[in-house]
Amino acid sequence: MPDLVRLDDSADDRLRDYVALRDVQLRSALEGERGLFIAEGEKVVRRALEAGYRPRSFLMAERWLDGLAELMAGHDVPCFVLEERAIESLTGFHVHRGALAAFERPELPSVEDVLTGARRVVVLEDLVDHTNVGAVFRSVAAFGFDAVLLSPRCADPLYRRSVKVAMGSVFRLPYARIEDWFATPTTLRCAGFTTLAMTLAEDAVPLDTIDADVDRLAVVLGSEGHGLSDHWQDSADLRVTIPMAAQIDSLNVAASAAVACWQLRPRGRSGETAATGTA
Amino acid sequence: MPDLVRLDDSADDRLRDYVALRDVQLRSALEGERGLFIAEGEKVVRRALEAGYRPRSFLMAERWLDGLAELMAGHDVPCFVLEERAIESLTGFHVHRGALAAFERPELPSVEDVLTGARRVVVLEDLVDHTNVGAVFRSVAAFGFDAVLLSPRCADPLYRRSVKVAMGSVFRLPYARIEDWFATPTTLRCAGFTTLAMTLAEDAVPLDTIDADVDRLAVVLGSEGHGLSDHWQDSADLRVTIPMAAQIDSLNVAASAAVACWQLRPRGRSGETAATGTA
Repeated sequence: MPDLVRLDDSADDRLRDYVALRDVQLRSALEGERGLFIAEGEKVVRRALEAGYRPRSFLMAERWLDGLAELMAGHDVPCFVLEERAIESLTGFHVHRGALAAFERPELPSVEDVLTGARRVVVLEDLVDHTNVGAVFRSVAAFGFDAVLLSPRCADPLYRRSVKVAMGSVFRLPYARIEDWFATPTTLRCAGFTTLAMTLAEDAVPLDTIDADVDRLAVVLGSEGHGLSDHWQDSADLRVTIPMAAQIDSLNVAASAAVACWQLRPRGRSGETAATGTA
Repeated sequence: MPDLVRLDDSADDRLRDYVALRDVQLRSALEGERGLFIAEGEKVVRRALEAGYRPRSFLMAERWLDGLAELMAGHDVPCFVLEERAIESLTGFHVHRGALAAFERPELPSVEDVLTGARRVVVLEDLVDHTNVGAVFRSVAAFGFDAVLLSPRCADPLYRRSVKVAMGSVFRLPYARIEDWFATPTTLRCAGFTTLAMTLAEDAVPLDTIDADVDRLAVVLGSEGHGLSDHWQDSADLRVTIPMAAQIDSLNVAASAAVACWQLRPRGRSGETAATGTA
């Protein structure tokens, strides 16, 4: 059982994993240095535990203790109990769904590891918005993709907001951070992937003409503001566009990812889509 | 040209259209009572003006004036000029992209009006999140759907956050607020629509088995927390599910909307998808 630690003072140093959760810059530095990430809400905390992540501590108001006792059982770490107002002043926001937990940040697998055996991957270049990163993970997982690769500057999938929007899919879906971004088109090609650069370019091929039976596909999506870099647009095996109505200039990157992953989902491997024919 | 009004005091009563823009409850009441909505950022303000919406005023810091003069030309309303800090204390947040504008809230068309001539509509039941509503509008517009119908309690597409996420597509895509929600399945059926209730129910038909050549389709999506009501699930012509990988329990409603609208987009009407065959 966790060790219940009732505290009055939100400035208590034992609570430092939880300070200023809405301050993205501060949290990015702090979580990297200390090797932690934060999960918010019972559902997400539960999924992190189920996926084998190691908690450092829990934090909640008194009234959530009973309901979450079963969840915390077997984890010999502190459970800090604080008044809701003190939690708010510590974290900087009102925690709606009871519990917070700090977890050890895992060491990421190598790019080679996540590509081994994968048939469908998504590659994200420099997404800045954690909500978008979380939403992409959720769709990528839903449509049976195997892994995600991130550019060096892409926003963190284990940032609290990403984790929450992803509904915990960041815990299940393997992902790796690429160091040599420039070489990535070659890396993927050598690993047997056909790379698809998602773009708004008018001479790109429409998404619905891509053969979804190809064995290994990598869907590459660019940042919210500028889309994919020239390097990727020049180096990918195919430039692919999602056909849109006149006067509409773009889709949100999370919507693009959902549509591309749906359209290119692996077929015939699991029961749920095997029986269906043309769309 | 707008009438430049330089102000020092963020409490000036002339600025009252812009108070507390992050306070959803207050804004919902205030915008309804005064018949206004707020557009944020040059791009969105431009689209509102292009779509013919009538501005009540503009609000910006001095340094944005030159760049936006052309945009405001021809609109004989006040342009309030305030220091950035005063704008922040008035609105409650840091305005990144220069301009805000208050517009007259338009009278919505009737349900009958938006259904006339429409081939594809989306129906939203009780979505609570403005970001989701905006994201749905953006995807719905991108894939050539003709209109959106909203349940009485569905979040407001003209709330600042919805408008921003929708990238102005709320200005172009006709939508109506339904009064008699209970009768909506019948209303749509009488108007010649096949209604598709999007659900996670295991006995629902998979999305990719739906014939996308059907003339009139209404895609019905439920709220973030509970999905579609029993009434809709019982009354729709078809219950439809998006096949997902094992262990994944749901998609975000905006992702579901993007995938469903993509899959069921009207074919053969415009050039961009006419040439493509099976999905």
